[in-house]
Amino acid sequence: MRILFTLIAFLFIINSSFAQSEDEITLRQIFDNVLESDVAYNNLAYLCHETPGRLLGSDESIAAIDYMKSYFETLGADSVFLQEFKTPAWKCRSTAVSIIKKDKKIRLRADALGPSPATTDEGIIANVIEVQGLEELKKLGEEAVSGKIVFYNRPVNRKLVNTFRVYGSAIDQRYYGPALAAELGAVGVLVRSVSTRTDTFPHTGSTQFEEKKIPCAAISTVDADILSQHIKENKDLQLSIRIDAEDLPEITSYNLIADIKGSEFPEEYIVVGGHIDAWFNSPGAHDDGIGCVQSADVLRIFKELGLKNKRTIRAIMFMDEELYQSGGNAYAQYSEINNIKNYIALEADAGGFTPEGFTVDASDSIYSIISGFKGLLEPYGIHYIKKGGSGVDINPLKKSGVPLMGYRTDSQRYMDIHHSAWDSFDKVSIRELQLGSGCMAGILFLVDKYGY
Amino acid sequence: MRILFTLIAFLFIINSSFAQSEDEITLRQIFDNVLESDVAYNNLAYLCHETPGRLLGSDESIAAIDYMKSYFETLGADSVFLQEFKTPAWKCRSTAVSIIKKDKKIRLRADALGPSPATTDEGIIANVIEVQGLEELKKLGEEAVSGKIVFYNRPVNRKLVNTFRVYGSAIDQRYYGPALAAELGAVGVLVRSVSTRTDTFPHTGSTQFEEKKIPCAAISTVDADILSQHIKENKDLQLSIRIDAEDLPEITSYNLIADIKGSEFPEEYIVVGGHIDAWFNSPGAHDDGIGCVQSADVLRIFKELGLKNKRTIRAIMFMDEELYQSGGNAYAQYSEINNIKNYIALEADAGGFTPEGFTVDASDSIYSIISGFKGLLEPYGIHYIKKGGSGVDINPLKKSGVPLMGYRTDSQRYMDIHHSAWDSFDKVSIRELQLGSGCMAGILFLVDKYGY
Repeated sequence: MRILFTLIAFLFIINSSFAQSEDEITLRQIFDNVLESDVAYNNLAYLCHETPGRLLGSDESIAAIDYMKSYFETLGADSVFLQEFKTPAWKCRSTAVSIIKKDKKIRLRADALGPSPATTDEGIIANVIEVQGLEELKKLGEEAVSGKIVFYNRPVNRKLVNTFRVYGSAIDQRYYGPALAAELGAVGVLVRSVSTRTDTFPHTGSTQFEEKKIPCAAISTVDADILSQHIKENKDLQLSIRIDAEDLPEITSYNLIADIKGSEFPEEYIVVGGHIDAWFNSPGAHDDGIGCVQSADVLRIFKELGLKNKRTIRAIMFMDEELYQSGGNAYAQYSEINNIKNYIALEADAGGFTPEGFTVDASDSIYSIISGFKGLLEPYGIHYIKKGGSGVDINPLKKSGVPLMGYRTDSQRYMDIHHSAWDSFDKVSIRELQLGSGCMAGILFLVDKYGY
Repeated sequence: MRILFTLIAFLFIINSSFAQSEDEITLRQIFDNVLESDVAYNNLAYLCHETPGRLLGSDESIAAIDYMKSYFETLGADSVFLQEFKTPAWKCRSTAVSIIKKDKKIRLRADALGPSPATTDEGIIANVIEVQGLEELKKLGEEAVSGKIVFYNRPVNRKLVNTFRVYGSAIDQRYYGPALAAELGAVGVLVRSVSTRTDTFPHTGSTQFEEKKIPCAAISTVDADILSQHIKENKDLQLSIRIDAEDLPEITSYNLIADIKGSEFPEEYIVVGGHIDAWFNSPGAHDDGIGCVQSADVLRIFKELGLKNKRTIRAIMFMDEELYQSGGNAYAQYSEINNIKNYIALEADAGGFTPEGFTVDASDSIYSIISGFKGLLEPYGIHYIKKGGSGVDINPLKKSGVPLMGYRTDSQRYMDIHHSAWDSFDKVSIRELQLGSGCMAGILFLVDKYGY
């Protein structure tokens, strides 16, 4: 018995070391290709320079889809199509926020939160009240808040190491703050930008309204400090907020889908994607042009290297991660209606910096298979494969039991640029981008090869 | 016996888990401090903006030393002094390289290698011969090379993952190329910049002459491609090289040393340092202003947190890593003459990007103690503590048996900027910098506490 066991173990070792060595060669081929390729980088240049501010419903969002569609067609993907859906949308044309002094106005750098209602052309003029968070506002109560502009000014907690946690330390003000202020009778809201830098860029983002909506905007961290100083000097300080924005009750939009057909199980889809939309104030380089071009690059790599995928590799450029998550929900619905078997889904929407790891949202047995690939990807920067959330666009697939994954990168610079004009092409390192494409292609190659 | 062993193991676990928890608290204090501090970042701004091009022998190098000296004095270090030494030096005032066409000159972006000899005011005019490396030049031999300008144009191997290895794939041309070309009778040398980017910045660096010296310069990767194209079109292409440079037979320069005295073993020095000099064409942000301000920050952290170091923590701003390594050698000599006990030395000269790890050049037993600290530093980005080289400035201490360490960071962007004007302050992330200061302070705190 013991001898048999030893023999089996020995054969297993032989087999797995042979297999590993073959996999090592394939991974090396992937990275040989990717580290010399500038295709994804050039695609990103187009998205950032020609289609900045490509929020749901904008002309730029359609131009971005069109560009990537013709890229996939030129690449020779087996199938390229638009998955159409209807959704409400929102448009912002301008934001103007000023401190009103006796003899002049001091303009603050601001961008509306989505989906802020518009003001009249004259804008709102009101006194301002500064608070450090939701609890403080609740304590002040309706009497103090009613008729005022509320200014949430609690900075992020910079002591945290991962900047997604830094972001999490202040995001409640932007996400829940306007609704709470509205409930208490405020007429407008300003929020200190949720950013790791002290600079002059407003960082916008979405806010969650209840019944009542009031105009709301983010101001840059520098402007937040300026405003706070003015409030200290004058308790009766007045602000003006003017926002030109519009709710669109229903528009038609699209996810872009491109497939490379599998040889054995063509009806099983290995999904890899990012979101093509970006905030109206941003070129959307790291959020999330890069996730799109990396996902597209996975298809290029499979095709150029002839990796013979058993299952269909499907890249999806999801529309509207930022505002209503309509694209991710529409794909899940489309999958359900059409009985699409999404075998696994990987989303890249955590910045395109140096690779760090993957998160897996799946059963223990599937997690255990995927985490077993870590050693093969360690030479390329993957330090961990751990349980965790995946991505906003693929998350609606979870209820159908699809195993989900997220690609994770070094977070240190991400919240410097997130949702702002500073998230521009020059913030991208081609090598960091390409290592990411390689890691994503590599892990999906292994998932396809070994299955679960 | 077995019970005793179990008991001992149990006590050890109790003890070490208690110790670890105390250490965890101290490390958290270090990072709480450092992630909210902008002192090192502001020091770096000064070095980059006010003392760029601070090569050995330049006014800027002395201004940089003066600035950091007054920083240490203001900090209240127990001892701050200049360690004087004499050394040859070299100065470059200008570099001009052009393609000579019938009706015009095409200027190429170039910077002299150090220590290139000067040309006359008229410069060198000669035919050019392009090669892909030293072996090709050797094969061509004296007849083909004599009287010509040699152009080494082999690009780096971008397929390698660590960019120090990418650098290593082409550096032989810059380092040994001019000497070989001189030996074969060439009158000048141009080298394709050793860089991971295709751009217009020349990346200079040192070259190793034998007996004979000839003028030599690096041209940007874009200019290298332009030149190569011109050579393809015209085999008799002529170039002009004009370099205004000067060898200085002997100058006086300094390492800057600042100490925070140890409470138990004040005569044992824990050295932490970077090099204050930078190439004449560069602000020297990542190479190595950042290593200097991080080392200085280690002292600040010990002082502000009252970390009660048993041994003296000594920060050294080494002069002249780039050209003749005179500062590092001078400190080793000074240590020997004065019987200085350098307990351990850590150098930060591999970029100030997100922390990755430490390398240790020491005995197995010391390595084993230091690598045991990895778990404590993992939450702050330290993925490895492995055997490896340390730094050019502390390396001369090796012959006296001093254990050496190197701080290592994410390398992906380093060779984009190295030894060029692009190595500027805006390429630095304050969070990446500060995590580095924290990791360095953290590991030295542990080394001091537990000893070897």
